[in-house]
Amino acid sequence: MSNNGKITPRKLSGFMELAPSKQVIFNNMVDNIRKAFEDNCFLPLDTPVLELSEILLAKSGGEIDKEVYAFKKGDTDICMRYDLTVPLARYVAMNSESLNYPFKRYQIGKVYRGEKAQRGRFREFYQCDADIIGNGELSMVADAECVNLLCEIYDKLNLSDIVVHVSNRNILFGMIESLGYQDKASEVLTILDKLNKIGKENTISCLKDMGLKEKDSTLLVNLTSKSGIFEKVLSEISTLSQNITFVKGVNELRELNSYLLAMGAKNYILDIGIIRGQNYYTGTVFEGHSKSHPEFGSVGGGGRYDNLAGYFTDKHLPGVGVSIGLTRLFDLLDSNDMLGQVPQTTAEATIIPLGDTLTCCLQLGAYLKSQGIKSEVSYENRSFKAKLKDANRREVPFVIIVGDEEVANKKYMLKNMKASTQEAFTQEEIVNEIKKSRS
Amino acid sequence: MSNNGKITPRKLSGFMELAPSKQVIFNNMVDNIRKAFEDNCFLPLDTPVLELSEILLAKSGGEIDKEVYAFKKGDTDICMRYDLTVPLARYVAMNSESLNYPFKRYQIGKVYRGEKAQRGRFREFYQCDADIIGNGELSMVADAECVNLLCEIYDKLNLSDIVVHVSNRNILFGMIESLGYQDKASEVLTILDKLNKIGKENTISCLKDMGLKEKDSTLLVNLTSKSGIFEKVLSEISTLSQNITFVKGVNELRELNSYLLAMGAKNYILDIGIIRGQNYYTGTVFEGHSKSHPEFGSVGGGGRYDNLAGYFTDKHLPGVGVSIGLTRLFDLLDSNDMLGQVPQTTAEATIIPLGDTLTCCLQLGAYLKSQGIKSEVSYENRSFKAKLKDANRREVPFVIIVGDEEVANKKYMLKNMKASTQEAFTQEEIVNEIKKSRS
Repeated sequence: MSNNGKITPRKLSGFMELAPSKQVIFNNMVDNIRKAFEDNCFLPLDTPVLELSEILLAKSGGEIDKEVYAFKKGDTDICMRYDLTVPLARYVAMNSESLNYPFKRYQIGKVYRGEKAQRGRFREFYQCDADIIGNGELSMVADAECVNLLCEIYDKLNLSDIVVHVSNRNILFGMIESLGYQDKASEVLTILDKLNKIGKENTISCLKDMGLKEKDSTLLVNLTSKSGIFEKVLSEISTLSQNITFVKGVNELRELNSYLLAMGAKNYILDIGIIRGQNYYTGTVFEGHSKSHPEFGSVGGGGRYDNLAGYFTDKHLPGVGVSIGLTRLFDLLDSNDMLGQVPQTTAEATIIPLGDTLTCCLQLGAYLKSQGIKSEVSYENRSFKAKLKDANRREVPFVIIVGDEEVANKKYMLKNMKASTQEAFTQEEIVNEIKKSRS
Repeated sequence: MSNNGKITPRKLSGFMELAPSKQVIFNNMVDNIRKAFEDNCFLPLDTPVLELSEILLAKSGGEIDKEVYAFKKGDTDICMRYDLTVPLARYVAMNSESLNYPFKRYQIGKVYRGEKAQRGRFREFYQCDADIIGNGELSMVADAECVNLLCEIYDKLNLSDIVVHVSNRNILFGMIESLGYQDKASEVLTILDKLNKIGKENTISCLKDMGLKEKDSTLLVNLTSKSGIFEKVLSEISTLSQNITFVKGVNELRELNSYLLAMGAKNYILDIGIIRGQNYYTGTVFEGHSKSHPEFGSVGGGGRYDNLAGYFTDKHLPGVGVSIGLTRLFDLLDSNDMLGQVPQTTAEATIIPLGDTLTCCLQLGAYLKSQGIKSEVSYENRSFKAKLKDANRREVPFVIIVGDEEVANKKYMLKNMKASTQEAFTQEEIVNEIKKSRS
């Protein structure tokens, strides 16, 4: 792997690495998500990327999933975290006595899964998680906070096209139970989860193949298809069964909706088809879906779980959380030209010296910075023309030309690159002109 | 490792994990550093934590330092990055044709070194780096930008006690050369680097043991001891040698200072004793040191290097950079009680329902959020008294009590917890009262 005795520079495949101009947009998204977390009084946590294997693999009884990055350092078995939930469980179990409950924490960080590399799949990706953990019990208000939080995040990201679809696992589970198929509940749910992909007829025939009656299969598929505004769907389904689990689901959804209304939540619907694979969700479940791009699938979601840290402590710690896989979402937006304008520079002005005026340019740059304007002094050893051309190519909004005459008069030539105008101004006037031009 | 059949929750030793209240302060420091980088038009980069071993180990000819976390995944040899410089070199070499030069990038991220665990040493720590890379050549203005940036960062972090000590490696190297010891230059510099730790006499005797004349040893130690304002120190040393390297060092420092003055840089001195271990620095070197805590040693620094990516490309890419190990700096401040007040909550108000007013509390909370006030509704199933006590313990500045009467009158009881006053206000008045109280 060498060229001219050099090592060919390359990165691992399946790892996202953005050009700085796109990284600016990515960071802006992170900032908006973090702001939503913080506006809602979630506190930050930053657990290590590495954990003891016995912690991360508690769920699987110590068996290493082939997707997990695991290795030995000295005598210690170490894994890279594959999500932020197990580290949260470990943290809460370790600190359960000193935390304030409900414990509201957020974490934004990289997680690792050595999946087969393919378009849209990343081995290192940002997870943005917020969870609320109760001590013994946890109000349904917490579920509403998480649903509302996800709505707020899409709003802050200007993704008004994304609607949060909400359900409660007790609905379908209760109906399956009332029809007498509770032994097959998990498999039935797995099939119903594919309804949107394979269509009604195929789903019904899959259920029949499993041994369900045609009538029951149709009933389940019709129930799973229900979606729309909360009140309407709830009134359509609430009398379908008296099963205690089913009724619990209906009541929880009703309560959830009353809180969401009080919070002023926007852009959410009830969608019984939201199942979410993980078996650990026990009540509320929700997912964000794009109206114009249903093929994106879920672009964030979460739900209620009965007990966060059962592997690590006897304490009963119910929780509800929300999670966004930001790397994948960013990649979807990027590959569908939905990122908006990509800036080539963050500088508002390039200051170009003409003649022996570098010191004066640096002073002017320091002054602009003190006034909140980002500028760069073009100090490279290149021609004036090349510098001007370069500023133009990078779409810097303003160029300031500082020649000897300008220094003497304390007025500098300000070129508005978009408007193709130029005029001599004092440094104070330059600040005003640049600030005026901000959209 | 089990208690009641549970796995004992624990984290790897040598990994920092802060309580959320301290994480708030840590994040605030990261935000300030990032703002300084961005105010100076550095663009963000976010390279993967994992790199191919052949990339990270290029410097050592493929040999794995025992501190590096290295492992195999399938057939691929992988390392966790131990700094942000080699990944930058790899990135720049891969993208050298498409970058704008001087290329100014910053990166804030975790790096990994499996050092012996001990107080103040971390195996995972945040590195905050900013570098300027030139194409073929790079002006001394870039060095000034980096020194000024470090000064700005300490100022933004309210660490006015920290002074940036600047030198140029050509000074000491040129003097060593002019005395005829160029063959031993590296060892001499290593000894001079210890001057502050072991004192003048011991340093002189170490140099003599190496075979240096007493007179030369004394001269070198006296030169290394020189520090103070630039003009004064430069005038003291500039005539000490005509050696071409020495003179180059003096001239570069003089040029650097002229730019720093133009930029309005504050809190920096010339200190010939700044050597910095890494051999790859070739000119300007600088370090931050606390005046009241010299025992902290260097709390950030950087310097000029001749060629960033020599292992990966034939292109000549000189650079200058600045780097802060934030995890260590934070730990030093924390263990010396220098963090300032640690907030127990980010909420400005706790809204406590009295009676059946939860919905109204949620509405009020949503209103406060829309007005930029962070509040939390105390919806747990606990007594009013317990909730009030809890808000007091966590030092939430305001408590808002919402009873049935308050709902009817649309006026809510606002308790100022510090002033121990309370009064009924409309929601608009509550916003004013809370905003008024902000310091």
